[in-house]
Amino acid sequence: MNTFGTHFRLTTFGESHGAAVGGIVDGCPAGLAISVEEIQTALDRRRPGQSALTTPRQEADRVEILSGVYEGRTLGTPIAFVVRNEDQRSADYGAIAAGALRPGHAEFTWLAKYGHVDGRGGGRSSARETLARVAGGAIAATLLRARAGIEIRAWVSSVAEIDLTVPDEQLDLSRIDSTPVRCPDPATAARMIARIEAARAARDSVGGIVTGTATGLPVGLGEPVFGKLPALLGGAMLGINAVKGFEIGDGFAAARLPGSAHNDAFTLDDTTGRVRPATNHAGGVLGGLSTGEPLRWRVAFKPVATLPRETATLTATGDPAILPAKGRHDPCVLPRAVPIVEAMAALVIADLWLLREMSR
Amino acid sequence: MNTFGTHFRLTTFGESHGAAVGGIVDGCPAGLAISVEEIQTALDRRRPGQSALTTPRQEADRVEILSGVYEGRTLGTPIAFVVRNEDQRSADYGAIAAGALRPGHAEFTWLAKYGHVDGRGGGRSSARETLARVAGGAIAATLLRARAGIEIRAWVSSVAEIDLTVPDEQLDLSRIDSTPVRCPDPATAARMIARIEAARAARDSVGGIVTGTATGLPVGLGEPVFGKLPALLGGAMLGINAVKGFEIGDGFAAARLPGSAHNDAFTLDDTTGRVRPATNHAGGVLGGLSTGEPLRWRVAFKPVATLPRETATLTATGDPAILPAKGRHDPCVLPRAVPIVEAMAALVIADLWLLREMSR
Amino acid sequence: MNTFGTHFRLTTFGESHGAAVGGIVDGCPAGLAISVEEIQTALDRRRPGQSALTTPRQEADRVEILSGVYEGRTLGTPIAFVVRNEDQRSADYGAIAAGALRPGHAEFTWLAKYGHVDGRGGGRSSARETLARVAGGAIAATLLRARAGIEIRAWVSSVAEIDLTVPDEQLDLSRIDSTPVRCPDPATAARMIARIEAARAARDSVGGIVTGTATGLPVGLGEPVFGKLPALLGGAMLGINAVKGFEIGDGFAAARLPGSAHNDAFTLDDTTGRVRPATNHAGGVLGGLSTGEPLRWRVAFKPVATLPRETATLTATGDPAILPAKGRHDPCVLPRAVPIVEAMAALVIADLWLLREMSR
Amino acid sequence: MNTFGTHFRLTTFGESHGAAVGGIVDGCPAGLAISVEEIQTALDRRRPGQSALTTPRQEADRVEILSGVYEGRTLGTPIAFVVRNEDQRSADYGAIAAGALRPGHAEFTWLAKYGHVDGRGGGRSSARETLARVAGGAIAATLLRARAGIEIRAWVSSVAEIDLTVPDEQLDLSRIDSTPVRCPDPATAARMIARIEAARAARDSVGGIVTGTATGLPVGLGEPVFGKLPALLGGAMLGINAVKGFEIGDGFAAARLPGSAHNDAFTLDDTTGRVRPATNHAGGVLGGLSTGEPLRWRVAFKPVATLPRETATLTATGDPAILPAKGRHDPCVLPRAVPIVEAMAALVIADLWLLREMSR
Repeated sequence: MNTFGTHFRLTTFGESHGAAVGGIVDGCPAGLAISVEEIQTALDRRRPGQSALTTPRQEADRVEILSGVYEGRTLGTPIAFVVRNEDQRSADYGAIAAGALRPGHAEFTWLAKYGHVDGRGGGRSSARETLARVAGGAIAATLLRARAGIEIRAWVSSVAEIDLTVPDEQLDLSRIDSTPVRCPDPATAARMIARIEAARAARDSVGGIVTGTATGLPVGLGEPVFGKLPALLGGAMLGINAVKGFEIGDGFAAARLPGSAHNDAFTLDDTTGRVRPATNHAGGVLGGLSTGEPLRWRVAFKPVATLPRETATLTATGDPAILPAKGRHDPCVLPRAVPIVEAMAALVIADLWLLREMSR
Repeated sequence: MNTFGTHFRLTTFGESHGAAVGGIVDGCPAGLAISVEEIQTALDRRRPGQSALTTPRQEADRVEILSGVYEGRTLGTPIAFVVRNEDQRSADYGAIAAGALRPGHAEFTWLAKYGHVDGRGGGRSSARETLARVAGGAIAATLLRARAGIEIRAWVSSVAEIDLTVPDEQLDLSRIDSTPVRCPDPATAARMIARIEAARAARDSVGGIVTGTATGLPVGLGEPVFGKLPALLGGAMLGINAVKGFEIGDGFAAARLPGSAHNDAFTLDDTTGRVRPATNHAGGVLGGLSTGEPLRWRVAFKPVATLPRETATLTATGDPAILPAKGRHDPCVLPRAVPIVEAMAALVIADLWLLREMSR
Repeated sequence: MNTFGTHFRLTTFGESHGAAVGGIVDGCPAGLAISVEEIQTALDRRRPGQSALTTPRQEADRVEILSGVYEGRTLGTPIAFVVRNEDQRSADYGAIAAGALRPGHAEFTWLAKYGHVDGRGGGRSSARETLARVAGGAIAATLLRARAGIEIRAWVSSVAEIDLTVPDEQLDLSRIDSTPVRCPDPATAARMIARIEAARAARDSVGGIVTGTATGLPVGLGEPVFGKLPALLGGAMLGINAVKGFEIGDGFAAARLPGSAHNDAFTLDDTTGRVRPATNHAGGVLGGLSTGEPLRWRVAFKPVATLPRETATLTATGDPAILPAKGRHDPCVLPRAVPIVEAMAALVIADLWLLREMSR
Repeated sequence: MNTFGTHFRLTTFGESHGAAVGGIVDGCPAGLAISVEEIQTALDRRRPGQSALTTPRQEADRVEILSGVYEGRTLGTPIAFVVRNEDQRSADYGAIAAGALRPGHAEFTWLAKYGHVDGRGGGRSSARETLARVAGGAIAATLLRARAGIEIRAWVSSVAEIDLTVPDEQLDLSRIDSTPVRCPDPATAARMIARIEAARAARDSVGGIVTGTATGLPVGLGEPVFGKLPALLGGAMLGINAVKGFEIGDGFAAARLPGSAHNDAFTLDDTTGRVRPATNHAGGVLGGLSTGEPLRWRVAFKPVATLPRETATLTATGDPAILPAKGRHDPCVLPRAVPIVEAMAALVIADLWLLREMSR
């Protein structure tokens, strides 16, 4: 199904080469100031052709709001939005239409599930669908910022073997967008850009890791059993195309630590007079609920499956086929994945924040 | 909320020191042969006191089926089951009742969310709740085995810094339960047991990693957008107490590989005459749907938060408090986590398998 | 599926002749004072054998709470409850077990849907399942009374052709339980009782109408599109066994009126100084949302299908069969339906009331 | 929330005087032949200005499909559709904008719920939203006709005190659309038209009853506990604007009958050799599940609340206000309600039919 969330709900529609992509946000409270420009700004960070690092496909991706907003404020009714598809060069996808299975792509499984593939290039399984998530997430982020003081940020922390080693708290997050690779440390960003260019030159692709953080959460966000905050956030991240791993706080490294080193002791905050964890190995959660400390998580993306080289493969019936070297794909999706990670996090947190308002 | 799943649904109830823990399975098809012994066997793998490695708490955890099964077969109606609590030594929890916040535990967040804590020791946030997941998962696993030929297995692959390095395909999974640590390689198991005993001797605890696998899946299980198989499986794993990370296939290591090394090329299977991926870097999924290859995932558990040593902490109002050295907790939850990982995987896959039956 | 509600959710289990019937209430806020006696009192109004008018089956129907309540207050966790079945005289149902289809009963449709019938007498389709609704509804009613000042009452307003003609506002609702037929007007109650006794003497059965009312609702309860208050309330009523019709306010009579006679004009309430509808043709709703005026609805029950007379019928394969004259069924379910109507209304209103707390 | 259904799901959006109204259908199987003309035909039966009996508002209501259909067949992905609003004469609604509460309308309750009203005339609570239901229902009806052989028809059976007395089985349903009032019996239709014209002349309005029927249902559609077919169908009907009552089969009349007269005996069908009910008092359901006999139900609509006469009322703060005599409303909504009743029935039955495919 194509709906995400329980209280703040996003339903998306659209194929990569159909008429349009869009969605409906249901559950956004009335009276929230929202502008089409805010949503457009978020989409511009995801759109193809935004820099030399990304695919040269040019799509303006202009969003139109069809309902739910009147005179700049939400009505409390469903907010529908739509982005028309423009650069529908389906001809690039002749080999798929002829039945060739692209390694690392969804045709193989999609064919078994639905009995057909959308020969126009990815169709519904295309990452173009994430455009609707970014638009919906922008509305969620506006709600969280305006009503709850919650801020969500993500950045690229690894590209292939190049790691950002500056500690999170020393990063200047205002610089995330100052390089096309969306790594806030200029020196590391330069190395990442070089690494992506090298992959492109080698007719190859690279993956990497996005780090996300959310600040301003109240204590107690999440549900204690199946709906733990890490479960919902991790499920949201693992629902993004190409994601292969998720960790929160110390994550896999926590499995190596003894309890005496991993436990976050409680302390009295001198400024607020409140009890809080003195350290944040847990990444902002305890018992599945937010602690009020910054939420910290990491998301692993596999390398882009489409390579700019001729590739031998098979059709579903076992006949040999050749995927041509054309196609206008990114050598690395990480820079464009940053707004998607932020959007999905905003949807999860807005959903839990609305639920919390109910139980108060 | 306390319900998991859409088509095969488990709703659980019960506090660690209340009258009983149990659940209702809704959506299990009629006519499935199921016995209370099968469920009991699964529970016995999770119960405390099962070996020298676990907590000395002794709880028989006898399950009773209240509905939905008649003459050894399911009726298609809700299957309710209940396990009475026995060893309710609430007195051990005097410090919690007095307001001490245990580091790494849920009292801090629970108190903010609900305005009270269950002074009887964890209450609903206790891992005792997972008993109901294991019982529900046993029913799901029986369904998958009988109707779909799907087998789910999990084992301990790391304890602190001790890693199982034998490749998955060389493991003899019939040996998982032959050691109390549930690692199928005897030599590694012995080192893990020694590592856990060392932690206990140091009045400390350790975490680790569980590897899971599912075989026999049809091609195409999962939903292509928000309900991708990794999203649902990962969300289920991250909803288990103490889990901090999840990866599928090559996971975080995939972020380091170039596309040319990570892509799984298609080949013609000599035996079946069918096209399939020749390798399985992807861990059994493509485009969020199962490929028919073994599903492979890993789950990181943090070290046990409760330590058998006197610990200074604070109350919620900032007063100093001492957590006494008593308590009967495991130095490492990994061996008992194995059936929980299997149960949650079975619930996810049964849910998707039923959904697939609908779309056929 | 066996779950009702979105925010205040009841999941029920149990077959008429299995081990037990019960349920889980999920979503009830913490801190609510609730006693097992309150739930028992509600069940006693539904139980068989309570008066000469009902089936002579004797079942004490003692309820036990298994979780979610501690020291007389809800914990905010799932409230599980169970009622053991006692008087399981399955032998009465030999003809069903042998395949005879009872006119007006579910065996015909159940057999087509599930491929089997529960030969023990109704099984899951038995009205015994409503016991769990009454228990869950008692918890919802307690919540509504304590937190929102909402009171729900229902009574028998017709038995066959005998109608209660006293206007609702002149009824003394404290007298509902003063006669076994649960009609608050003594004279009408006497005629109804005589009518039921006449049906029994004629080896026949009768149906009738239950009127329900809820007072103290805030303005604005309900959702304006698909989840209109009449839609949710009507759906709940039509989910009760034997119900064939539902109307709100003037109902079917409204279809006869001109708009000028049906519209409720607005007036200024002298006491409160607030605007309110001067009349209540609408039955307490406008645009699908509550107006704050008493909610008024009516529910039509068909006559009991099981007759105390030998009846010729067929098996599913078309062979002639005889249903014997035994069986211990009610000649009229209306008196026992009153608490079920109240329970389902309480579940609907509690669900909407919790949702409203969220949107405030 | 603005989503209807579980497996075949419709989410709608749009305000009466905003940019557009539309929706997303999620869950429609792939490969179904569907044309925009089919949907348009359904919309034309609902649109204003279609005959002298309806409002003179002229809106072409042209539908555009944005996704989910390719080369005339569904893709199995979400089907989004949109209808631009044209005749947005908000000026007609000056009195509402100034705070006047229209008797029988939603402003009073909406204001309490959301703290604002959409002064442009109804907004989201306007019956214009049902346009999206008709479009979504047309897709559901196409699915049911093509895949399951199920046909749904509705007609006007009462206008005020004028009743259609011809038995259902003697009606020629191909004549429903042959008169603007959508009653298939010409003589009754003429009397109904005269009655509506009389109401218009009297500056008043009238209500009435729509009868619906569905044929070709398999035995066993529905869920046996909360999701009984009458519960889902009734809930859907009671979610239509202006509906005040619902009954299935004999409905309220069944409450008057003895069991011996109401029970439908089983018989052997000479043609098919199958067992079936010999009569259909039940209206096509038993135990909440379909019997395979025609589903028969009736829906009561209140008279139109907006009257073409000057009306004194109050504002929410109690100030006197005058609603002017203008406005371009229908004197009777029944003819335009027919396609809405059919659409909601199609949505309910498609949802249950998909669920049944799962349990087979």
